[in-house]
Amino acid sequence: MLHLAPEDRAFLEQARVGRLATASAGGEPHVIPVCFVLDGAAVYSAIDAKPKRVEPRKLRRLENIRQNPRASLVVDHYEEEWRRLRYLLLRGRAEILETGPDRERALALLREKYPQYRSMPGFGAGPVIRLIPETVRCWRAEPAADDDSDPGFEGEMA
Amino acid sequence: MLHLAPEDRAFLEQARVGRLATASAGGEPHVIPVCFVLDGAAVYSAIDAKPKRVEPRKLRRLENIRQNPRASLVVDHYEEEWRRLRYLLLRGRAEILETGPDRERALALLREKYPQYRSMPGFGAGPVIRLIPETVRCWRAEPAADDDSDPGFEGEMA
Repeated sequence: MLHLAPEDRAFLEQARVGRLATASAGGEPHVIPVCFVLDGAAVYSAIDAKPKRVEPRKLRRLENIRQNPRASLVVDHYEEEWRRLRYLLLRGRAEILETGPDRERALALLREKYPQYRSMPGFGAGPVIRLIPETVRCWRAEPAADDDSDPGFEGEMA
Repeated sequence: MLHLAPEDRAFLEQARVGRLATASAGGEPHVIPVCFVLDGAAVYSAIDAKPKRVEPRKLRRLENIRQNPRASLVVDHYEEEWRRLRYLLLRGRAEILETGPDRERALALLREKYPQYRSMPGFGAGPVIRLIPETVRCWRAEPAADDDSDPGFEGEMA
């Protein structure tokens, strides 16, 4: 399991979109918005059927992960009241799942979280990316007034 | 100037937050939400006075850019109606500006775009990151019904 305060876990689980960063072997960073689910100690996202310029398995994020498994996901909240800004940054190792029960379970969880996937033709045919976070940074501009979940919480920025 | 359709330029200019990806010399990707402005052919973001865990000049994004100037910024729109999903991905070279007129101009533009910066103590004292995009990808799930700005637009994903 990911070591997260309950309040941070809820923030991660409830987020509808995150941004996944990968890098080529040569260190060229890439970042893309992704829908995702948290399952135990990993975060999963699918290569879905949204329109793509290239054949799905040639997507940059997959090419990067094949060359260099390091990846980061940031999940944040933006609003004009900057005292409520926050983010969670997960850094770790990504894998591409082409088959197997973990992939199937992730696809089921994605369909559960996102009704849009349930009616998407071809959803579930492509690979799934698993990110296993090794470090987590939780940053908030300032603790919420009603935040009693983690008295040791400290704003931090990676 | 950045080569962008007017409608994509407006999307980029009006966005309040983007996510900036950098990578260490060893290829470890990092991604962080940033406030930014577009000025001519470059995108600027400031190291501001929001709470930081480390001394500002030791922030990961700056360390990464010093080691490896490649960077990407994604600006996207998420909503539950997935036909309206879109993003712009800028990939290029980042620089750290510690002094000079370009930095001053970027700080002025940031203050203009974000009223929050005008009252932030210490804003403008830190470095500014300039990203000079070399490639731009514009992706939309499907063209907006009222989108007549670029009949040649094609949904694409990097």
